[in-house]
Amino acid sequence: MADYRYYQYDLLKEFCTKAFNKVGFTKKESAIIVDVLLLSDLFGIESHGVQRLARYHKGIEKGLIKLDAKPEVVFETPISAVIDGHEGMGQLISHQAMSLAIKKAQKKGVGIVSVRNSNHYGIAGYYAKMASDAGLIGWSTTNSEAIMVPTYGRMAMIGSNPIAMAVPAEPYDFLFDASTTVVTRGKLEMYNKAEKALPEGWALDKDGKPSTNAADVLKNIVAKNGGGIMPLGGSDEVLGSHKGYGYGMICEIFSSILSQGATSNYAMTGGKGKICHSFMAINPAYFGNPEDIMKHFSKFLQELRDAPKAEGQARIYTHGEKEVEATKRILKDGVPVNINTVYEMIDMAKFVGLSYTKYFGKIKKPEDKTKKSLY
Amino acid sequence: MADYRYYQYDLLKEFCTKAFNKVGFTKKESAIIVDVLLLSDLFGIESHGVQRLARYHKGIEKGLIKLDAKPEVVFETPISAVIDGHEGMGQLISHQAMSLAIKKAQKKGVGIVSVRNSNHYGIAGYYAKMASDAGLIGWSTTNSEAIMVPTYGRMAMIGSNPIAMAVPAEPYDFLFDASTTVVTRGKLEMYNKAEKALPEGWALDKDGKPSTNAADVLKNIVAKNGGGIMPLGGSDEVLGSHKGYGYGMICEIFSSILSQGATSNYAMTGGKGKICHSFMAINPAYFGNPEDIMKHFSKFLQELRDAPKAEGQARIYTHGEKEVEATKRILKDGVPVNINTVYEMIDMAKFVGLSYTKYFGKIKKPEDKTKKSLY
Repeated sequence: MADYRYYQYDLLKEFCTKAFNKVGFTKKESAIIVDVLLLSDLFGIESHGVQRLARYHKGIEKGLIKLDAKPEVVFETPISAVIDGHEGMGQLISHQAMSLAIKKAQKKGVGIVSVRNSNHYGIAGYYAKMASDAGLIGWSTTNSEAIMVPTYGRMAMIGSNPIAMAVPAEPYDFLFDASTTVVTRGKLEMYNKAEKALPEGWALDKDGKPSTNAADVLKNIVAKNGGGIMPLGGSDEVLGSHKGYGYGMICEIFSSILSQGATSNYAMTGGKGKICHSFMAINPAYFGNPEDIMKHFSKFLQELRDAPKAEGQARIYTHGEKEVEATKRILKDGVPVNINTVYEMIDMAKFVGLSYTKYFGKIKKPEDKTKKSLY
Repeated sequence: MADYRYYQYDLLKEFCTKAFNKVGFTKKESAIIVDVLLLSDLFGIESHGVQRLARYHKGIEKGLIKLDAKPEVVFETPISAVIDGHEGMGQLISHQAMSLAIKKAQKKGVGIVSVRNSNHYGIAGYYAKMASDAGLIGWSTTNSEAIMVPTYGRMAMIGSNPIAMAVPAEPYDFLFDASTTVVTRGKLEMYNKAEKALPEGWALDKDGKPSTNAADVLKNIVAKNGGGIMPLGGSDEVLGSHKGYGYGMICEIFSSILSQGATSNYAMTGGKGKICHSFMAINPAYFGNPEDIMKHFSKFLQELRDAPKAEGQARIYTHGEKEVEATKRILKDGVPVNINTVYEMIDMAKFVGLSYTKYFGKIKKPEDKTKKSLY
C-alpha cells in the first residue's frame, strides 16, 4: 500500500518557492513556477504536481534547464508569434507565451503562439486557464519525450501530447486537459511509486506487447528501447487507436510544426529538452456578446450534469468540475504526497540548503528504499 | 453477406448532380453538394458517401432542408464570422463558410467561422481539405443529432462531433478526420445495412448497457429512448472515456457555443436540423516560411511511416495516406455501393424523375427486402 502524508498547500508553496529561489530563479520567477506546479496538486492531479519536483531539480542539476535563458520572440504578427525558449524553464517561457497570446486576442480577436526549445511546462490546463480567467477561450498543447506508440508501430514516436481547453462558464469554467495517450507518463510514474500493476490497455513493452509493469515501461521509454503508452483508443483501429494518434498529431502541429522545433521523437536527446508548446486565446467578443455566449454554454453544461445517469453512477461531471471540488477539499485537508515524493523533496532541500524538518517533520529517508531516479 | 455493386465515379457524379439539380438546386450548387458527398466514397469512407443520399433526399422531402435558404453572415470581424444557415443545405452553407475563413486567413493570418441553423454537411475533412488545398492549415468541426452518451450517463447528449484537420505536406497532405465517439453513426448505419453485429465497445442500449444490435441502437437514437454510441475511450475513465467526451465538447464549443446555435441535444428536434459547424483556417506564413514549415512536417510524417512496426503489421499510416490510396483504387475499380444503397438511389431517381436503368442497370428493388427508412 502506498504511504501518503498530508501537507498544507501554503507550506508546500513556501517550501517550493524558496527551493526554486535558492536554485537561482528570482522570487517572481519562482512564484510562477510553483503556481503552475501546485495547481496540479490542488486539482488532484498528483502526477504533475510536487511528484514532478525531482524532474525539475534533476533537470536544473544536469543543465538541461538553463536558469538564465531568456525566451526570444523570433517571429511575430498581430495575431501570432513564435518563441524560442533557449532551453529555459518551461513554466516561465509558457507563462510569457500565453500572456502574449492573451494580449493579441484582446486586441485582434485571436492570438496563437508556438514555442520551441523549451522544457516540460507542467499541466497544459494551467495556461488554458490563464485565458479563461481573462474571459477568453484558452487552448494549450505541448509535445514531450516520445511515449506514444503510433497505431501499428512498436516504437514511441509521439509525446503524451496533451490538449487543454478552457472556456468561461458559470458556476465554474469548463476546463478540459488530457493527454492524447490513454494515460500520461506521470500516471505511470505514480503507479511505479505506489508499486501497483498498470491496468490492461495502457502500455506496451519493448516488443510492442501489452505490459502492466510500470517500471519496465518507463525504463524502456527513457532508454528508447521500444514500447510505450497506447494512443487514446488502444492499439488497433476497432476502438479508435488512429484517433488518439491523430489528436497527438494535432498537438504536434500546433507545438513543434508551426514553431519549426523538435518533434517528440527528437525531444530529450543530446542532453537537451527541446520541448515545444502552443498557446491560443480566442476572444468570444469576436463572435457575439461574451455574456450571452457564456450563458448559452453554462446552460448546456448544466444539462449535461442533469442528464440521466448510467446504472450505479451518481453523477455526470463536466470538465473542470472535479478540479474545482478537489481544490476545495485539498485546501482544507492538505495535499496528499506519496512518501517517495517526500524523499525527493528532502533531496532537493539538501541540494539547495533548506532545512526540510521545518516543512516535512522528522522524516528519515531510508537509503534502501530509495528508488533509482527515472530522470 | 453484403452485396456490393461497383459504379464508375463519373457515372455516380453525373447521376447525383442531375438528381440534386432536379430536386431544385442550381447546377453550381448541385456540383458542390456532390463533390462533398463523393469525396467520402473516393476516400473509402462509405458511411458518409452515397449511402447518405437517402438522408438528404428525405431531408428535402420533409422540408428539413430548405432549398432556397440563403446563408446570412450575422456577425463579422476581420478574423471571425458567425453565419446563420437558415436551414439550408449543409454542404452549401459550409462551402461558403470555409471559403470565408480561407479569405480571412489569407488577409489576416487566421479565419474562424462558426455556423448555426444548418443541416448535415457530409465529411468534416472536405472543408479542412479546402484550406490545405489553398496552402493553409484547415480545421472543421460539426455537431449532430445527439448520439454520444457522456461518461457515466445513459442518454445521448452530444453528437458524433468530428474534428478534422488538414495540413499541407509532401508527398500528400496530412488529413485527420474522426468522430469523437468510438465510431460514427454512419458506421452503425453501414453495419445495419450489411446486417452485421457491432463489435463490442461501440454502443449502449436504451438502459445504458453494451449492445451489438445496430438497428436497435439507431432506432433508440432517433426516438431519443436512451443509449447511443460511446465516447472515444469507452464507457469509463480507465481507458479515457472522459477524453472522448472532452473532444466532443471542444467540437461543441467551436460549433454551437460560439455561434449560439443549438447544442447537439437540441439538434434534429421540432422538425428542424439546427446543426452547427465551425471552420478555421490558419496561414502558416504567419509563423515562418510556409515552405520550410511544410518540409519540416513532411520529414516527421516520413519518420512515422518508417518507424518500426508492431508484430504482424506491415505499415504505419499517417492520416490522409489511406484516403490517397483509396482514391486511386476507387477511380480505377469503381465505387463499391451496397445493394441497399442502390435501392435508395433508385427511390431518389423515381422521386426526381430520372431514368435509373441508365445509371444502375436493370436492377429490380425487391419490395420485401426494403428496409424501413431510418430518417
